[in-house]
Amino acid sequence: MGKKRVMLPVQDVDISTVKYEQEEIQAPHLTGFVFKFFVWIAEMPLIGPLIVSVLKKQNKMVELLQNTEIPETPMFKPEFPPQEPEPGVVILNEDGKPEDRVELALKCLPLYDPASCWNGDSIPSFRYWKIRDYAYVYRSKRTTPSVVAEHIISVIKEFSSKKPPQPLLISFDPEEVRKQAAASTRRFEEEKPISVLDGIFMAIKDDIDCCPHPSKGGTIWMHEVRSVRKDAVCVSRLRSCGVIFVGKANMHEMGMGTTGNNPNYGTTRNPHDPERYTGGSSSGPAAIVASGICSAALGTDGGGSVRIPSSLCGVVGLKTTIGRNDMGGSLCGSGTVEVIGPIASTVEDVMLVYSAMLGSSLADRISLKPGPACVPILSYDNSNTLRSMRLGRYTEWFDDVFSTEISDKCEDALNLLLKNHGCEVVEIVVPELHEMRTAHVVSIGSETLCSLNADWEDGKGSRSTYDTRTSMALFQSFSAADYVAAQCLRRRIMFYHMEIFKKVDVIVTPTTAMTAPKIPSSALKDGETNMQVTANLMRFVIAGNLLGLPAITVPVGYDKQGLPIGLQLIGRPWAEASLLRLASAIEELFAKSKKRPVSYFDVLNG
Amino acid sequence: MGKKRVMLPVQDVDISTVKYEQEEIQAPHLTGFVFKFFVWIAEMPLIGPLIVSVLKKQNKMVELLQNTEIPETPMFKPEFPPQEPEPGVVILNEDGKPEDRVELALKCLPLYDPASCWNGDSIPSFRYWKIRDYAYVYRSKRTTPSVVAEHIISVIKEFSSKKPPQPLLISFDPEEVRKQAAASTRRFEEEKPISVLDGIFMAIKDDIDCCPHPSKGGTIWMHEVRSVRKDAVCVSRLRSCGVIFVGKANMHEMGMGTTGNNPNYGTTRNPHDPERYTGGSSSGPAAIVASGICSAALGTDGGGSVRIPSSLCGVVGLKTTIGRNDMGGSLCGSGTVEVIGPIASTVEDVMLVYSAMLGSSLADRISLKPGPACVPILSYDNSNTLRSMRLGRYTEWFDDVFSTEISDKCEDALNLLLKNHGCEVVEIVVPELHEMRTAHVVSIGSETLCSLNADWEDGKGSRSTYDTRTSMALFQSFSAADYVAAQCLRRRIMFYHMEIFKKVDVIVTPTTAMTAPKIPSSALKDGETNMQVTANLMRFVIAGNLLGLPAITVPVGYDKQGLPIGLQLIGRPWAEASLLRLASAIEELFAKSKKRPVSYFDVLNG
Repeated sequence: MGKKRVMLPVQDVDISTVKYEQEEIQAPHLTGFVFKFFVWIAEMPLIGPLIVSVLKKQNKMVELLQNTEIPETPMFKPEFPPQEPEPGVVILNEDGKPEDRVELALKCLPLYDPASCWNGDSIPSFRYWKIRDYAYVYRSKRTTPSVVAEHIISVIKEFSSKKPPQPLLISFDPEEVRKQAAASTRRFEEEKPISVLDGIFMAIKDDIDCCPHPSKGGTIWMHEVRSVRKDAVCVSRLRSCGVIFVGKANMHEMGMGTTGNNPNYGTTRNPHDPERYTGGSSSGPAAIVASGICSAALGTDGGGSVRIPSSLCGVVGLKTTIGRNDMGGSLCGSGTVEVIGPIASTVEDVMLVYSAMLGSSLADRISLKPGPACVPILSYDNSNTLRSMRLGRYTEWFDDVFSTEISDKCEDALNLLLKNHGCEVVEIVVPELHEMRTAHVVSIGSETLCSLNADWEDGKGSRSTYDTRTSMALFQSFSAADYVAAQCLRRRIMFYHMEIFKKVDVIVTPTTAMTAPKIPSSALKDGETNMQVTANLMRFVIAGNLLGLPAITVPVGYDKQGLPIGLQLIGRPWAEASLLRLASAIEELFAKSKKRPVSYFDVLNG
Repeated sequence: MGKKRVMLPVQDVDISTVKYEQEEIQAPHLTGFVFKFFVWIAEMPLIGPLIVSVLKKQNKMVELLQNTEIPETPMFKPEFPPQEPEPGVVILNEDGKPEDRVELALKCLPLYDPASCWNGDSIPSFRYWKIRDYAYVYRSKRTTPSVVAEHIISVIKEFSSKKPPQPLLISFDPEEVRKQAAASTRRFEEEKPISVLDGIFMAIKDDIDCCPHPSKGGTIWMHEVRSVRKDAVCVSRLRSCGVIFVGKANMHEMGMGTTGNNPNYGTTRNPHDPERYTGGSSSGPAAIVASGICSAALGTDGGGSVRIPSSLCGVVGLKTTIGRNDMGGSLCGSGTVEVIGPIASTVEDVMLVYSAMLGSSLADRISLKPGPACVPILSYDNSNTLRSMRLGRYTEWFDDVFSTEISDKCEDALNLLLKNHGCEVVEIVVPELHEMRTAHVVSIGSETLCSLNADWEDGKGSRSTYDTRTSMALFQSFSAADYVAAQCLRRRIMFYHMEIFKKVDVIVTPTTAMTAPKIPSSALKDGETNMQVTANLMRFVIAGNLLGLPAITVPVGYDKQGLPIGLQLIGRPWAEASLLRLASAIEELFAKSKKRPVSYFDVLNG
């Protein structure tokens, strides 16, 4: 029995009375034996569900989901009102050839000047090699994809043979890489490269199909029950542009965590500090890009899993609008919150990969009616387009970070945008953040559980990590009515955001509320549960997932330990182009302060 | 632990190998003390859930929802591919005035000839008074709405004072009816009737708001927690056409049953046999129309609740496409399966009421993109349009009825259509009927539970009927992952139906697999649970709800006991007009065999 609470209809809520509430997380940090014991208890019949229900009550989930009358009808998938077209963009043909799209996107970039960075074989201050750098050296015959492949193969092997192993890739076949590189090298020899992406090395997160590799999703059993017969749709699009795939990148098991901890294959280390996490769940993709080994990688983002590791590793990560990309051939294609997104060292490279891989599935075209896919024209002075940009900041939220260095650096970025581009910062309020988080965890948890249920019940549960098993114990506790209630909350949160987007063009936040956390040595063997860290890493990412909005993270500096800090931009539905333009301007402002990661490898020069 | 089952991807299923499987229901029929005792046990902690889970396992729900890998992604709301426009129809303006729409629909009807039925004050063979009959007598000043109102008021009082009471209405205010009738009478005196619906008497199911009545949903507590401040959207549209509302019609509590049993207010009796159920949950609406008291009524249909009682009472009931009507102001507006639909004694009247009340909500326009609202042009010889009609029949399913009288009469109707209109019957297969039923009960149950949860936990559960409490115990057992799995099944079932609709224009079935069941006297005080009856009543109705497809029931004769038999037509998305045209042709074929219900009242003649 519980006393009924009644929410006001969302359009009647007086935003001016909303008070910011800090997250209160009531859950212990567990590693090692205690963690294993906890999981043992949590999986016991009767007692397990009881403990989970106490934890849920403490975290105000029961009150919200079961005792609250939510006046809105459920919104099961993001539903967007029709959107205005973005200014100063080029529309990409979703149904056209990927190589045509990427070449069109290429034309939107400023002229490439090899002299600016390619003066001899060295570079003055640190900057990552871009896709266009590779394109230039391949075309000017300074090197070949096959030569680069050998450098990459030796670096990847080196990582895997460390003690403890910290593999960037879970599945890696040097011969397969050599074969792809040889084919690309031949195309360059014949002077018939397919596109600017020909000979570009990419890593694919282990939950996206990429032949001939299995898709394990970071588990030790997924490939036994699910075989990979063809590339995921987006991988096949990239392949048709000439991309070379180095293998399947490491990840937090099944994407159910934000640190990148993986006891099955070893935990990927942060290229800026090997004692620290990369963030997750796309740990391998972010690390392999940040350490200079691959130009780009694909991750999946259901709760910040592209943006969090990109931010912690100091690279750029794009979470596209839901439905922008076809999820066919990924392990997480059945959800309402998850998308595949590109990670690269520069906004320009994110844009190129994005333009090649995009294109909605048939089902999403019916249910989501995607807006036109656009990329910004960056080749002209874009200050005019930026001048009209209104950046929405909810200051109390923005400042709710583990260390003020984070909010300070992010604020510096906003100030530079104001000063150099005339953007305007508008104070906003994002109500019901607790409700947003609850709706998200119920949605992603239930959808994940549904897709794993048959295998889980068939004995695969006990072969999963303690971390995953803890999450699954929580997910199993959600009732169908909880799920529907979460969807009613989704409609509320969508309303608030659409109201905000009447006043601003993007919402700006730090990407994470903390920089890369240390890896407790006790967590390497059996993992850990640390909801405080999870909360700090996920504080700002949820709207992108629950509402399907596009969001990008771009580096804006470092904390005192030299760890990267990312700024997040959340955009209107289908407005990836605006995010890319703004991110590109921010990137330019911080170009000179870029630090070389500790584990950086110059694969172009070997 | 359960052995994993894997379903083939839906497009790979070989339909020719599908075998029809009869429903196996494993649940006891309970009434009286045993029923109360069962509910007491089912609501006990630990033991209750255990019993429910055993029942679910016996009925193969656990295996399907938890141990089966369903390859499809979830479809949370019906998603329809774009549809061809219907031939020979008139498009109604959704945004226009309801009275303009109804007048346009009126023009689509054959010329009204008063002499054909209105020869003096008597009619030769039985036929209900139609809306156009009322329109004629009001305009020719043979009577007034106020005179008719008095007849209606006295009849309704008579029903309520029976022992045991069998109220057609749960909320009834004679003065309020007189007031509305007086206003209408005045309009006729001034020769300014608003529309053909002016002065037409309608009843509104108790789960749709209609001022000044409370909406109790058939419960004894709903009005305490939810007040009615304005008409539901569809009621307000009808009111603006001049409709007179007699009050709130009786129903199965919260719509959670198909018989119409209601211990709170008394169980409505079937006008063809007072010892029998009307069917439900829209029991009052169907009975008040079938007994001649109201020209039409509004019901809600989440699992056949308009079609079942319409069929059992021998009248016409339309379940519109999901999103066709705005659900604002109904108790069941948050679901993905339920719509408001009109019940009337003739297809013509259903069409008039439908045309007045239709119009999607803003949210549905975004998420469902309704096709144009059309009505058929019935004023010309429609045999040409019907000649091309392909009627899909799944014979084994069609014949799976409690008594062959039902399938025989339905087949007679098809044969007449073939003979008189040149329609074609095409054999079809509807696979995965068990999956469809399971997906439906999980969907409607979870959505209902979600909307009631806060009140239920706040003590209203114990003030609900044992029947409702039994259903809620089942609904509470559904997990969030079950709900998502049900939505994956929804995508499969949608695929099958869209494939069927490539070959046929409508699917034909009996509306119910049994005629009106007897009311056990032991069930009057505390209700009953009888899953066998439920299964027989719901056998053919589910596609309309789970897939949001339009469907209509039209009477095609009587069984040996004189109980009505209904034929159901299930149409393509948004194809209400085709259903109305076909139903109208069927109605004409059976016009001469219509029987006067035992409890018929000629309110036009007093």
